[in-house]
Amino acid sequence: MKLDQVRKTSLERMFHPRSVAVVGVSTSGDGFGSGIVTALETIGFEGKIYAVNPKGGEFRGSKIYQNPDEIPEPIDFAIIAVPAGHVPAVLEECRLKGAAGVEILSSGFSELGTTQGIRLEREIKEICSRGIRVVGPNCFGIYCPKSGLTLLPGPELSRVSGTVGFLSQSGGMSVDFAHIGKWMGVGFSKVVSFGNGADLRETEMLAYFEEDAETRIIAMYIEGIQDGGAFFSALKQVAREKPVILYKGGLSEAGGRAVETHTASMGGSAAIWESALRQCGVIQVTDLWEMAETCLAFSMLPERAYENITVAGGGGALGVCACDTAAQYGFRIPVLDPGLSEAILEYLPQPGSSAKNPIDAANPFVEPRAYREILLNAAKDDRIDLQILVQLMYHYKSLASGMGGVSLKDIVPYREMAAIASEVASVTGKPLMLVLPNIMQGKESLDIEEILREARKAFLDAGIPVFSDIRSCLRSLAHVSRFHARKKNETKKS
Amino acid sequence: MKLDQVRKTSLERMFHPRSVAVVGVSTSGDGFGSGIVTALETIGFEGKIYAVNPKGGEFRGSKIYQNPDEIPEPIDFAIIAVPAGHVPAVLEECRLKGAAGVEILSSGFSELGTTQGIRLEREIKEICSRGIRVVGPNCFGIYCPKSGLTLLPGPELSRVSGTVGFLSQSGGMSVDFAHIGKWMGVGFSKVVSFGNGADLRETEMLAYFEEDAETRIIAMYIEGIQDGGAFFSALKQVAREKPVILYKGGLSEAGGRAVETHTASMGGSAAIWESALRQCGVIQVTDLWEMAETCLAFSMLPERAYENITVAGGGGALGVCACDTAAQYGFRIPVLDPGLSEAILEYLPQPGSSAKNPIDAANPFVEPRAYREILLNAAKDDRIDLQILVQLMYHYKSLASGMGGVSLKDIVPYREMAAIASEVASVTGKPLMLVLPNIMQGKESLDIEEILREARKAFLDAGIPVFSDIRSCLRSLAHVSRFHARKKNETKKS
Repeated sequence: MKLDQVRKTSLERMFHPRSVAVVGVSTSGDGFGSGIVTALETIGFEGKIYAVNPKGGEFRGSKIYQNPDEIPEPIDFAIIAVPAGHVPAVLEECRLKGAAGVEILSSGFSELGTTQGIRLEREIKEICSRGIRVVGPNCFGIYCPKSGLTLLPGPELSRVSGTVGFLSQSGGMSVDFAHIGKWMGVGFSKVVSFGNGADLRETEMLAYFEEDAETRIIAMYIEGIQDGGAFFSALKQVAREKPVILYKGGLSEAGGRAVETHTASMGGSAAIWESALRQCGVIQVTDLWEMAETCLAFSMLPERAYENITVAGGGGALGVCACDTAAQYGFRIPVLDPGLSEAILEYLPQPGSSAKNPIDAANPFVEPRAYREILLNAAKDDRIDLQILVQLMYHYKSLASGMGGVSLKDIVPYREMAAIASEVASVTGKPLMLVLPNIMQGKESLDIEEILREARKAFLDAGIPVFSDIRSCLRSLAHVSRFHARKKNETKKS
Repeated sequence: MKLDQVRKTSLERMFHPRSVAVVGVSTSGDGFGSGIVTALETIGFEGKIYAVNPKGGEFRGSKIYQNPDEIPEPIDFAIIAVPAGHVPAVLEECRLKGAAGVEILSSGFSELGTTQGIRLEREIKEICSRGIRVVGPNCFGIYCPKSGLTLLPGPELSRVSGTVGFLSQSGGMSVDFAHIGKWMGVGFSKVVSFGNGADLRETEMLAYFEEDAETRIIAMYIEGIQDGGAFFSALKQVAREKPVILYKGGLSEAGGRAVETHTASMGGSAAIWESALRQCGVIQVTDLWEMAETCLAFSMLPERAYENITVAGGGGALGVCACDTAAQYGFRIPVLDPGLSEAILEYLPQPGSSAKNPIDAANPFVEPRAYREILLNAAKDDRIDLQILVQLMYHYKSLASGMGGVSLKDIVPYREMAAIASEVASVTGKPLMLVLPNIMQGKESLDIEEILREARKAFLDAGIPVFSDIRSCLRSLAHVSRFHARKKNETKKS
């Protein structure tokens, strides 16, 4: 489906509104409406915010308008957080005021399964048909880092734009992923939590993301769809160009029952979904973590298929496990050219290490400048497409305590490692991925956690994606690799 | 295989030595030998420690003996950390001194694949045949919380004994798991890192763990085995009574190559291993995390099969995902008896929540006393075997910042929740599992991490196993459930 100009303009006004009305703000500051005003102010929303409540009054020193019509300038967008029964009237007021669209945070509609709830949702649809767009009801709304629109509750979300567009039927999932993205290194163009989806839904948003220049990667959490034919045909079309990563909830009997009460959707059969998604070239994931990690890999890795990799790190079993896992995901860890292995061996402690690939440093304290030589040499093997580095940083804790009160920050060379990783990737043209497991998660080891978070940030800033375990690293790489292999294949065919 | 009394006595003397010689301690404090003396002192080893080095001298105010023979009393056990070439001579000295056994931390033996390395390892075997037991070489040794023997490097390991016996061909894996167990709540009877396994190996240790009253659960990381027939027949025998959780490394071509250089082992075919382990009733896991989580579930859950469960938590998509994952692992989430659902609904916020099962509180701030009633009511449904509670605690961070500088510790009711979970499990006789995901892992959110760690500790102390995500919780439960279903079935048959 192609979006016409009217729809496009409406959506752009909703994502980047110059002025927003928040309907349902109380003078006391209680409730979702007041919460969203505070969140918008905290995150630094770029437009104007007008609070609305029929009772009037003031909220934090600003006037509360008694209805949208009273607002002295045009509004692009409204956020509605009033009890379900009042929603249709408020929506109609927003339409008359000329808003392009609204998000309805309130629940109490078709997800209840009651006559009243279903009737109210029908009224919403009727008003939409007269010319206003609705996100929701029963949702957490829109998050757009560029404009500063944020989810409920989302005052702490990042203002840094990224390339992932995320559409989520679940509000909880949208806010969870937005939070995870912030530290994991996944940036968003737009996040839309659409809840019951009375108006704006999966197929239209997919078409929007397809055309949206800010969105390079599309992620979706879907509980139920409205028009299967249209959706799958849109998926097939979009997934040819942009990766579509889809997490389908409600594929079990009990899960299907749960989506009914959650977003008034129908679950569907696991086998049918899997086969349909595969045929469309969509990347199906099975939980939020896999979705986030896959988006990270797509965001940061060069767009191509990968086949042969190296694994380097301190600890033989880590290398063994990496090899086994790599094989499961279809990667090869070839024995390096003997000359290169010999060169690498010079930088490894003896005995106990191995330089064949996996490269087992057999010691967690190998210095960054040694890793530089190791990785540069390994990349000289023409077959190698990508390198994975595994670092177990907790051993520095023993080292620090042995050195008598030395701070971990002084001895863990994560900044140097990040700089070297970035240099190696850039010099060799072969990307690097970092695996940073946290083995010590006790109450007494928050210092390690802090260092790991600093290290993650330093590597991300240096352009290196970071994963918490080998499996998630390789699984994400496999998704990227398969997508690009398929794309290349299709381009050849056509 | 049955262990004879001589072997048993030797092993007991090795795990609980009254006196230990550490050979390879330098006056400077450098090297593994000195490190292990420090580690033994730090962890509070219960016996006497004698340092040995042909050069003599003192280490931290204590005499270094020039050879084991000089030590003024008998020794039960020795820890050898000298260059490979000196190992056979030192081993012979320990044998003459009457030690029951030694651990050889040094590497430089058959794992190198050199004539010299292979010859040295053969010499070790020859000396063993004259009456001394060896753990290693190329290993991290023995960790026994009860006696205070610890791995290299292991000064921070727990002194609290538990029921898991872990045998690991990899030193890194042994020390990683020992650290993970400490905070995850997995306690160990003994951990043995056996490296190249010149003497003591998988089959004999399995027989030891079978008979060991302190070991209720057996975990193994295996890279290669010596006598397949004997090992699988022992596995089959032992797995009838005690759960055996096995992680086989080196099942891929590259992984098999890596185990050769790591512990001089042969990898083997994935399909053959899988089928053989399944036939033996062994629980095969595919990484260290799954192994640790499975051990946790076996340690803390009552010994039985589980079929019908409830899932309760704040957030609809969490419930949907839990249902889908539960179905994948063969569990049912039945719709609760309508009367009980009605009773539960009274304790849930409205609208947006659901009490059918999954129980969606639709709000992360439902109070502990409400959860008490919810869980007590849900357990009244006769079909329910076990309950899973999912808590997303990061939302309290927004709450705290909205309340102006309130500390998270003051408002997250984890202690009350832990007490209630324990009470509910005990009153109803239906165990509870807690899922505690960490969504906010940024540098600025260490306060959430701290609370989560406090909460984990509180729940573990209250007898409730804690998992970081729904998948690992259900996967672990599935392992426990299948083991006991099989055991019950076999008992019926016989």
